[in-house]
Amino acid sequence: MISRKIKSQLAGGSQIRKMFEEGNRLKAIYGPDKVFDFSIGNPDLEPPHEVSDALADICSNPVPGMHGYMSNSGYESTRAMIAEKRSKESGLSINPGAVCMTVGAAAAMNDVLHALLDDGDEVIVLSPFFMEYNGYIANHNGKVVVVPTDENFMPVISRIREAVTDRTKAIIINSPNNPSGVVYPASLLKELNDMLKSFNHTIQVISDEPYIDLIYDGISVPCAMSYIDNIVVCFSWSKSLSLPGERIGYTLVSPKNADYDDLTAAIVISNRSLGSVNAPAIWQRVIEKSLYAKVDVANYEHRRNLLYSNITDAGFCAVKPNGALYIFMNTPAGLDDEEFADKCAAHNLLLVKGSAFACPGYCRLAFCVSEQTIRGSREAFFIIADELGISHRKAL
Amino acid sequence: MISRKIKSQLAGGSQIRKMFEEGNRLKAIYGPDKVFDFSIGNPDLEPPHEVSDALADICSNPVPGMHGYMSNSGYESTRAMIAEKRSKESGLSINPGAVCMTVGAAAAMNDVLHALLDDGDEVIVLSPFFMEYNGYIANHNGKVVVVPTDENFMPVISRIREAVTDRTKAIIINSPNNPSGVVYPASLLKELNDMLKSFNHTIQVISDEPYIDLIYDGISVPCAMSYIDNIVVCFSWSKSLSLPGERIGYTLVSPKNADYDDLTAAIVISNRSLGSVNAPAIWQRVIEKSLYAKVDVANYEHRRNLLYSNITDAGFCAVKPNGALYIFMNTPAGLDDEEFADKCAAHNLLLVKGSAFACPGYCRLAFCVSEQTIRGSREAFFIIADELGISHRKAL
Repeated sequence: MISRKIKSQLAGGSQIRKMFEEGNRLKAIYGPDKVFDFSIGNPDLEPPHEVSDALADICSNPVPGMHGYMSNSGYESTRAMIAEKRSKESGLSINPGAVCMTVGAAAAMNDVLHALLDDGDEVIVLSPFFMEYNGYIANHNGKVVVVPTDENFMPVISRIREAVTDRTKAIIINSPNNPSGVVYPASLLKELNDMLKSFNHTIQVISDEPYIDLIYDGISVPCAMSYIDNIVVCFSWSKSLSLPGERIGYTLVSPKNADYDDLTAAIVISNRSLGSVNAPAIWQRVIEKSLYAKVDVANYEHRRNLLYSNITDAGFCAVKPNGALYIFMNTPAGLDDEEFADKCAAHNLLLVKGSAFACPGYCRLAFCVSEQTIRGSREAFFIIADELGISHRKAL
Repeated sequence: MISRKIKSQLAGGSQIRKMFEEGNRLKAIYGPDKVFDFSIGNPDLEPPHEVSDALADICSNPVPGMHGYMSNSGYESTRAMIAEKRSKESGLSINPGAVCMTVGAAAAMNDVLHALLDDGDEVIVLSPFFMEYNGYIANHNGKVVVVPTDENFMPVISRIREAVTDRTKAIIINSPNNPSGVVYPASLLKELNDMLKSFNHTIQVISDEPYIDLIYDGISVPCAMSYIDNIVVCFSWSKSLSLPGERIGYTLVSPKNADYDDLTAAIVISNRSLGSVNAPAIWQRVIEKSLYAKVDVANYEHRRNLLYSNITDAGFCAVKPNGALYIFMNTPAGLDDEEFADKCAAHNLLLVKGSAFACPGYCRLAFCVSEQTIRGSREAFFIIADELGISHRKAL
């Protein structure tokens, strides 16, 4: 009875469920403080006070019709504020009409892909990547084309060029990246733009940007819109304001996009037709009042530092992530990601194998877990290193 | 650049936009109180006080993680309360696992159709019907099969039977109905179930139920789940609690459904993959606290009575709607729906032609507009009747 698409996703989904269940099983046996679960990327910080202040203010000062329908693209006033903010950041002149409020970035990406894809159109993704993209692309009958990044997880322009065909409709980029945490430099974005524009047909860049505010080491994230013309941004406040359960985000079509008129209109229709209809009214109002607020990023940076030290002090290797919520560590020589993940699980240390991001040879650890869990896990990293004959770089 | 599916919807969408613009144009010329716009079905009553009380309570008593991710199907506690309510109403024993919280009924229907449809699978719809269904079905590569209802807008079992093929995957029912306002009797639901079960393959009934609480004349809506086994309910609080801008609803798979296990799992995956991920957390919490509340239905009934009197007193014909927010009036003899709508617009009376619901020969009027607008429009109905040589049934 179930559609073939969903059947294949049901089979895939059960692996993730297995991992959750394994964590719960171990916690029941050893106690929650003896299990170090780095598998789940759930932002655990509370929203900044601006959010609760805005929410309280909205509830205390109700306006007639405040829970009613608005335009499918969202409130004009909310979109105007976002357009203003992104204009300042990008140096472009962005109108409210470029923005469509969405039920988070996942809905934003579905809206854009639905607007773009005909059966069999190809979408390039850069491994390692967030594998939900496979489902989003399949939902709209597209074909996923995976192009591996380099050893530092940076996109390789020549590889992408070779993957382009007449059916290439779009490429998804994601910086800061899940799972690698790397940030793409401006020069790379510029090169990507030049390369894509050398083809005879338009190739859209879909920039998935939920992590742009989670950035460490004092660096800044180059604004993809400033360097790429045919671009649609997909944003979510799930991480920036720690509101993942509330579903609020947007799409933004660059004013430089060759298909600006068609795309802005088509995305709004997608947003209605795919069932969101519009983003939740109350969260649009909250966003207006807390647009420039952010979660406590220093807290995430502190925990990243602790977990990164555990990994590298014990003797393992990982590229230090400049953003997002994950460390994508190398699997030690001689072990594939499944074997390594199993070895770690034997010491109650749970991580996600790189194959789940189309990138075996690595494992992902989310550092949005308690400091206690990170500190508690240090010994396990050292014991696993000992078992594998890996020399520590620092003392336990 | 834009996908073919969206291109066709872009063309269709512009007709509706034209109507909106016509209303605004007329209001600018004649003044808002001289234009009688019955075209828009936007629930205009404020939510009941239970909703604002619940919202205030949630904001005053924040709980850590209250804006975070939960299961893709929603909070267990919310789903348990809904399961309990629907168990009482249906006489079935419904588990929380049968319920998946969604971003309104539009998302619910997309989730279900995505879970069910392979390319070219057929979905029966009963005209007149809410034409967004066409988009929902096309999104998931299904084929729409339109079966007309009878002159009282009741489904005709023999006609539906004739439309069933080996590719029929589902039929959408909608009672109380948009646009006709009719309520399907229990006997009809039972007949439909018997007929559908006489085929060798399972045909799912998708019951779109956003209007079940907007019901007049002291009647009650037979619970479709009590009479139909292979059924999935799609519900939204957009109308019951006047929360259309907030996007909160659910899917519910009947415990009697032959595909219960597959369908409940598949719908949750659809909900994640199509981009909702989960229904807004805050609205799930509000629903828990105001599940048995309702908008002021008597107010809608009063306005239905006023508008129905205008139409029939002037001499026009319409089936009196027992539910929902619309009157689907007959186009007078000799005029098609477009001609009649144009004639009405010439008197600043705006309605939607039946063709927009796959049912020419009728026009839809939404009575969720101010009482002043309804009273103000009475004269226009009488003048139009005079022009068409139609005898009044009562005095102006």
